[in-house]
Amino acid sequence: MNNNVIINQLNKHVSVRTYSEKTIEADLLNELMSAACRASTTGNMQLYSIVVTSDQRLKEELSPCHFNQPMVKQAPLVITFCADYNRYNRWCELNKADAGCGNFQAFMTAAIDALLVAQNFCIAAEAHGLGICYLGTTTYNAARISEVLALPEYVVPVTTLTVGYPLNLPELTDRLPLESVVHYDTYREDDDETIQEYYSAKEALESSKTFVKENNKENLAQVYAEVRYTRANFEHFSRAYTDLLKKQGFVL
Amino acid sequence: MNNNVIINQLNKHVSVRTYSEKTIEADLLNELMSAACRASTTGNMQLYSIVVTSDQRLKEELSPCHFNQPMVKQAPLVITFCADYNRYNRWCELNKADAGCGNFQAFMTAAIDALLVAQNFCIAAEAHGLGICYLGTTTYNAARISEVLALPEYVVPVTTLTVGYPLNLPELTDRLPLESVVHYDTYREDDDETIQEYYSAKEALESSKTFVKENNKENLAQVYAEVRYTRANFEHFSRAYTDLLKKQGFVL
Repeated sequence: MNNNVIINQLNKHVSVRTYSEKTIEADLLNELMSAACRASTTGNMQLYSIVVTSDQRLKEELSPCHFNQPMVKQAPLVITFCADYNRYNRWCELNKADAGCGNFQAFMTAAIDALLVAQNFCIAAEAHGLGICYLGTTTYNAARISEVLALPEYVVPVTTLTVGYPLNLPELTDRLPLESVVHYDTYREDDDETIQEYYSAKEALESSKTFVKENNKENLAQVYAEVRYTRANFEHFSRAYTDLLKKQGFVL
Repeated sequence: MNNNVIINQLNKHVSVRTYSEKTIEADLLNELMSAACRASTTGNMQLYSIVVTSDQRLKEELSPCHFNQPMVKQAPLVITFCADYNRYNRWCELNKADAGCGNFQAFMTAAIDALLVAQNFCIAAEAHGLGICYLGTTTYNAARISEVLALPEYVVPVTTLTVGYPLNLPELTDRLPLESVVHYDTYREDDDETIQEYYSAKEALESSKTFVKENNKENLAQVYAEVRYTRANFEHFSRAYTDLLKKQGFVL
């Protein structure tokens, strides 16, 4: 048994999708943001912005961007983490320097910064009894999110969290065996049988069997690939996201 | 004063670039990896791989990819976090499903997964007294890193950590004022004076003044933009990274 309070918290992480009505005090939010911003950042440039949305009308405008998942309207806070080269670029302009933004590497650098801050924020929030849920829909409908949040040039949404005090905590979800995702020294290519074995515990879950049955599929992989994360959607949202990157100034 | 052990740890984070010779035991590494993999992941797909390199010859091959920063050869572990659609794609193929990978949204989804795991790993490692340093050079020289680590189709390096027991801890670095990076409800565009004010404490640091003087520049923004993160480099490494994405199967 591990007595490390931090490891224990990480091991207990679950995505929380229902929240009590209790609001998050401004002092606490500042403390969480301050801790989040201690995350490593490229060259200490802090190429991100964090948009904290609590206004109900705005949350309702964001809701369809996130496929109307109910937690967007219900959570006290919807927090959008953005890759942001705008602030740094303006500082450079004011100091007669060329920030060199507007390219893919600049976007990636800022996106990495934004994601490290987001994860740090989650850890800080959970340390204070809050629950969070990531919204992967952010990169799908980033163009509309950018309009709702009035994001200027060189600012692009990368991920979103809903945050609040948990109404109830779901069960811990499954994970692939550690040996499937960790490689030593170089990448290990597994044979077909081993790949199948990695997913066997996931496939054996009652919930997985129910998904397969309800969707009239042969197996869980088909539920993932043909129902949840389809090529048609991925290709559509790829064009949408690259179009937004260009619109915001990041030429690919 | 905050008594929360987790917030305290986040607030003390520094990048550690010198390590003792003490190795990291396999049991501890497994515990850290296991905690890291509890991070949120898109649809519970775990679209990442973590390559843990301890072999000295391989670290020496990785070293030039990271501009020969000395911690790559010196750290007990160099850990490369990769966006990985290979494992999931093979599982789908084996189950007659089309994983729909090979596009930008697939890459972004996997990159986000990889970065959340990386940051969780840092928190877990620091909870056990280890020190970490992110290497932003990963996206610059990802093509060569992919060769050294033998990364297959649909696997792309996103970030790297050097990890070990700290030989010494540097001072806490500065951060921009919280109000510069946090926005409420929608994005707030600041006026020029406010932007300059945000960077004034950073500019006033003795270390910043030294950088400006040593590089014969007028101000700190010029050191950043004309010495450290130049347009020429960013554009060069943008082409290199997009070329690698295509080579690994992610069409943009």
